[in-house]
Amino acid sequence: MQVEFGRVDAQEYARLHERYAPLTAAVRDLVDASLRTGVDPDTVRDAATAIRAVTEGLRSAQPEHPRLLHEDTGRPVAWSNPVIGVRNPFAPPLTVRCDPDGRYRSEFTLGAVCEGPPGLVHGGICALVLDQLLGEAATAGMTEAKFTGTITVRYLRGTPLGPLQVEAWVDRSAEYKTYARGVISDAQGPTVEAEGVFIMPAWARDVR
Amino acid sequence: MQVEFGRVDAQEYARLHERYAPLTAAVRDLVDASLRTGVDPDTVRDAATAIRAVTEGLRSAQPEHPRLLHEDTGRPVAWSNPVIGVRNPFAPPLTVRCDPDGRYRSEFTLGAVCEGPPGLVHGGICALVLDQLLGEAATAGMTEAKFTGTITVRYLRGTPLGPLQVEAWVDRSAEYKTYARGVISDAQGPTVEAEGVFIMPAWARDVR
Repeated sequence: MQVEFGRVDAQEYARLHERYAPLTAAVRDLVDASLRTGVDPDTVRDAATAIRAVTEGLRSAQPEHPRLLHEDTGRPVAWSNPVIGVRNPFAPPLTVRCDPDGRYRSEFTLGAVCEGPPGLVHGGICALVLDQLLGEAATAGMTEAKFTGTITVRYLRGTPLGPLQVEAWVDRSAEYKTYARGVISDAQGPTVEAEGVFIMPAWARDVR
Repeated sequence: MQVEFGRVDAQEYARLHERYAPLTAAVRDLVDASLRTGVDPDTVRDAATAIRAVTEGLRSAQPEHPRLLHEDTGRPVAWSNPVIGVRNPFAPPLTVRCDPDGRYRSEFTLGAVCEGPPGLVHGGICALVLDQLLGEAATAGMTEAKFTGTITVRYLRGTPLGPLQVEAWVDRSAEYKTYARGVISDAQGPTVEAEGVFIMPAWARDVR
């Protein structure tokens, strides 16, 4: 599936970011509060009513958003991505950078909304973060069209909720396949490792 | 890590469910609306202000919630679980059942908040759902203490946003290891497969 993208320059991106990031941050905080609240039943009910009114207002204009690429980097504007999306209240969101050594890294914090076993990150959330980071490494920061073929995630120990870091890098490439590896760590060291094979789709091979 | 659990009977669970599920549903809908809205900047700003006020009200009581087990099934009440948690606005949430054939299944719908490539589910979200379902199968519906050792996820084709189903089952067991498999399908058939090894922690082996 090939998708048409528009272009957004730095100034327009900054304008959209400034408009929507505070709303997303407010919703993100509400998600955590609603999950953890212990207020009385009436307050819970009133909160739900107030939230529905806000939702109705936001739904009054709901256009198909154009798919956008950053004009300077060719990187997609992943507004809704559940890991890095600036407009996705579930995304922490991760800010991923490419360091001079060619590795993709991010420091981030996971809270109650990501909990699996008590006090620990859900194993599938670790897989989600690693899938994103290995994908970033395999596609040179999402500027190349490649899809995940297979990913293997190895859990070394429980990953505590709180501050974490992740890094990913290309291990090797062959033909249309790119092999990437990555690791999530807390202050005590690695907690989860992953390796993945990323495959360039047939339509992208033709246009190289 | 061994955690103390309280018990909740069916009546108390129903009471808590009735109190919190509408709030979570309202927040879930707001998450989608805030991600997709195209209203004018003033309305975006007013929405964020209104949301912050609701959040403040909900934060006025934020107790440490007790860890609860269903009295009748011994299954943990996974309020906050990002896949099945009734109080987690990010969770679809999946309702997982164990069928007479011993397989764990769920029908569910994923929307904009789970998007990776345009129109498709983020690969890592598929991994998250499969990690949960394989875990359900490996632990007899979360009634046995086992942690994911390794999970391998194989992407057969893109998984479209919309209605999906997932099933998982135990393939075999040996010593303290349980091997589970699973698959996500849309109406046209399988999109993603997974296999995982689940390991009983040392402290649980002692108390069997």
